[in-house]
Amino acid sequence: MHLIIDGYVRDPKKIQDKEFIYRFLDTYPSQIKMTKVSSPQVSQHVRASQSNHPGISGFVLLAESHISIHIFPERSYVNIDIFSCGDFDPEEAMKTIEREFGLIGARSYAINRPHADVE
Amino acid sequence: MHLIIDGYVRDPKKIQDKEFIYRFLDTYPSQIKMTKVSSPQVSQHVRASQSNHPGISGFVLLAESHISIHIFPERSYVNIDIFSCGDFDPEEAMKTIEREFGLIGARSYAINRPHADVE
Repeated sequence: MHLIIDGYVRDPKKIQDKEFIYRFLDTYPSQIKMTKVSSPQVSQHVRASQSNHPGISGFVLLAESHISIHIFPERSYVNIDIFSCGDFDPEEAMKTIEREFGLIGARSYAINRPHADVE
Repeated sequence: MHLIIDGYVRDPKKIQDKEFIYRFLDTYPSQIKMTKVSSPQVSQHVRASQSNHPGISGFVLLAESHISIHIFPERSYVNIDIFSCGDFDPEEAMKTIEREFGLIGARSYAINRPHADVE
C-alpha cells in the first residue's frame, strides 16, 4: 500500500519546525507496525525563487519501504508519502496525518503496489 | 509528477549490487535536471523470513522531491519512485529505468501531484 497525501496546513509555523518533522518520522513507523532501517534524514534547502522560505524535506527508510515528507513553507503546503509492503489502514493513517499536521483541504490517493511475494 | 515503477529484473545480480544503486541515485537526478540536496543513502536489511537475501533500499533527497528504490533480491523485484515538482518526461524516465535496471514485466503509474505554486 502506498498512501499519497498532498495538502495545506492550518498553522504554517508547525511545518517550519525541523524537529517536528524529525520526531514524526522517528515515531510514526512503530505506530503502524513498520520497522525503521535508518534514522530519519531531514534537510532544509533554499530555492532561488523563495529564498526567505527554505523548503524542508524528510525521509525515513523502513524495511522495504519508506515515509517521505516535503514541505513548502511559503504556501503552507505538504506532500507526504507512506509506502509500506506491510499492511496498514490508509484511512486510519490519513486521520493521524490530518491531526498531526493540522491539514486542511488535503487530497489523498491509496495505490495498491503489488508485493513480489504475493504474486 | 510522481512516477511509480514496480517490476522484475532480468539479472538478479545487478540489483544485489549496492554500488550500482548508489551510482544510479547519485547520477540520475542531473540527467532529468533535478538537484540533489543530500548524498544518496543506501541500506541493506535482513528480514527474518528471507535471511539469505537481504533487501536493499536507497533514496536521494532532491529539492522538494526524491527518488527511492526498494529491492527484493529473492524475487528479482524492484519498486522505484521518481517524484519531482519539476518537469520531467515520464515516458523517457521509464525507458531509462527499464534499460538501466534491465526491467521485464514492469508496471508504472504517473501521478500528477499538483504543486502548491501553480494552484
